[in-house]
Amino acid sequence: MSVQAIAWAPSGAVRIIDQRALPEAEITRDLEGAESVAEAIKQLQVRGAPLIGIAAAMGLVAGTRDLRAVPRAQFLARFVELSDLLTDARPTAVNLRWAIHRMANVAQATPGDSAAVWERLHAEATAIWEEDRTMCRSIGEHGLTILGEGTNILTHCNTGALATGGIGTALAPIYLAHEQGRRLHVFVDETRPLLQGSRLTVWELMHAGIPCTLITDAAAGTLMRQAKIDIVLVGADRICANGDFANKIGTYGLAVLARHHGVPFYCAAPWSTVDASLADGDLIPIEQRAAEEVTVMAGRPIAPAGAAALNPAFDVTPARYVTGFITDRGIVQPPFPESP
Amino acid sequence: MSVQAIAWAPSGAVRIIDQRALPEAEITRDLEGAESVAEAIKQLQVRGAPLIGIAAAMGLVAGTRDLRAVPRAQFLARFVELSDLLTDARPTAVNLRWAIHRMANVAQATPGDSAAVWERLHAEATAIWEEDRTMCRSIGEHGLTILGEGTNILTHCNTGALATGGIGTALAPIYLAHEQGRRLHVFVDETRPLLQGSRLTVWELMHAGIPCTLITDAAAGTLMRQAKIDIVLVGADRICANGDFANKIGTYGLAVLARHHGVPFYCAAPWSTVDASLADGDLIPIEQRAAEEVTVMAGRPIAPAGAAALNPAFDVTPARYVTGFITDRGIVQPPFPESP
Repeated sequence: MSVQAIAWAPSGAVRIIDQRALPEAEITRDLEGAESVAEAIKQLQVRGAPLIGIAAAMGLVAGTRDLRAVPRAQFLARFVELSDLLTDARPTAVNLRWAIHRMANVAQATPGDSAAVWERLHAEATAIWEEDRTMCRSIGEHGLTILGEGTNILTHCNTGALATGGIGTALAPIYLAHEQGRRLHVFVDETRPLLQGSRLTVWELMHAGIPCTLITDAAAGTLMRQAKIDIVLVGADRICANGDFANKIGTYGLAVLARHHGVPFYCAAPWSTVDASLADGDLIPIEQRAAEEVTVMAGRPIAPAGAAALNPAFDVTPARYVTGFITDRGIVQPPFPESP
Repeated sequence: MSVQAIAWAPSGAVRIIDQRALPEAEITRDLEGAESVAEAIKQLQVRGAPLIGIAAAMGLVAGTRDLRAVPRAQFLARFVELSDLLTDARPTAVNLRWAIHRMANVAQATPGDSAAVWERLHAEATAIWEEDRTMCRSIGEHGLTILGEGTNILTHCNTGALATGGIGTALAPIYLAHEQGRRLHVFVDETRPLLQGSRLTVWELMHAGIPCTLITDAAAGTLMRQAKIDIVLVGADRICANGDFANKIGTYGLAVLARHHGVPFYCAAPWSTVDASLADGDLIPIEQRAAEEVTVMAGRPIAPAGAAALNPAFDVTPARYVTGFITDRGIVQPPFPESP
């Protein structure tokens, strides 16, 4: 059984699992408004490209639930303010923008008073979440075809139940194959600096009873050289029209290693991750995060005081390294048309 | 100024900087005998292929200094016991074996009583250390030719003053170029799991005033893709006759990335790192270290309890990836003959 990363709290708040606290503690937080959702996204309490889109949509609903009695114009003005706040929470993943844009379209298009608009927004956020769950399952079903009995998979970062509203993107085929009784083994890159691999992916996989082995990011090369990896399976935070895509820092290095060793390299993502407005990967904004994520660990300095550190959260992998994109519409190849 | 990683204590003990405590604390320890030197090597309080060779030689001297009055046969029997203990401390680096073997030859070849043998061993250990210091400088001078003004270097693990008796192996050319006023920039892989890059290399370079930037291991690929790296410079723990070499886990991945991006990839090591008895890299024993080095950080779990982890300390890079071997005998190419 996979975990449930997000839900509506009975109060109407957005209930999340605080992913910064895992695996030491499983803390559930109720985020009462859009500000606290934006803060949780910035601090990576909620992370994963699909999940932050869902969280933002739900945050817009939670953050306007006390405004159902105000005039429509005032409701919409506040809605726009909160949308901007959430949009700025993180720059790279397109799903965040996509979900907020979709909510904004609904808000504008819905006639009636604030209460009517809010009800429609609530339904839309829930739909975004439920569609994501369906998309995950669909990605999983399409991806099943590439995971034969005994496959050894290498994955990076967290692209599972904790990154989505459902069973994940790159982990979805793994969950389904395991459900069907196929024997698999997952090698999990720890994914420095924030260790989403060791903290989240290993936690999820162990929770589901799927055999896995944690490795440092730098060990991937030698495992491929030893032919211990049959396939590399990663997620994406934004996919351009030409198929270049942004994903967690380290993905590009894995793609080069996979190419060099003849290991198939797949990217799994819902169609909403495609940003057809960007022609290629050079146009994707790459979030630069604080040096302290690299120089401090668990509150202890692991580099000398004053050390300079570069900490790009993502890198861009050119489309030519990708064997196939596993989406909810099948395993596809670029170029990607504008979403219908 | 570079730091001094090892010395004789006035008592005759082996004085080291405890490298597990850096950069938080600079702790000097006096290791009174061969057992404590072996333990310090196992625990990586002393690490770096050349330095553990020197430490072992000095440990044999410190560990026999109270036996100068016993019969020669008893002295030599104890010497062999302590040699075996030190040899077993770590399996991959050849320098440890090389230094112990050299000390054993001296012990056997020196006539006279225990005191005479001990005096000769003391001189030999000091010679091993001093020769290492000279070798470092010589590696630096040969390597200077590849470091032009403005070179951006990527390095991995720690191959500097803290890894040797002198100014290092792969860092030696950098120290000398900096001394000569050449402008350089060093990108330092943090080198998980034990963070020798962030804890030791950044510390050393900052100590010497050499500009450097810390990165996670997984960020190297994107930096190469952005043409921010002009050259990769790493050390070695053992070099085979055909030029395949073992070095810190992650070195092989860097070699593949460098090849893929047309970045020159150099391995710097003293000639004593060559083990011409091994035809190729498949024959190098690779030390597997405890899973806890990957799953626990600064005493805190960073993976779920019971998580399986693979933790090979080294990987093997085939000779074909190496642009050149920077040794104390010049920049050379394999095959490597038996040491004269």
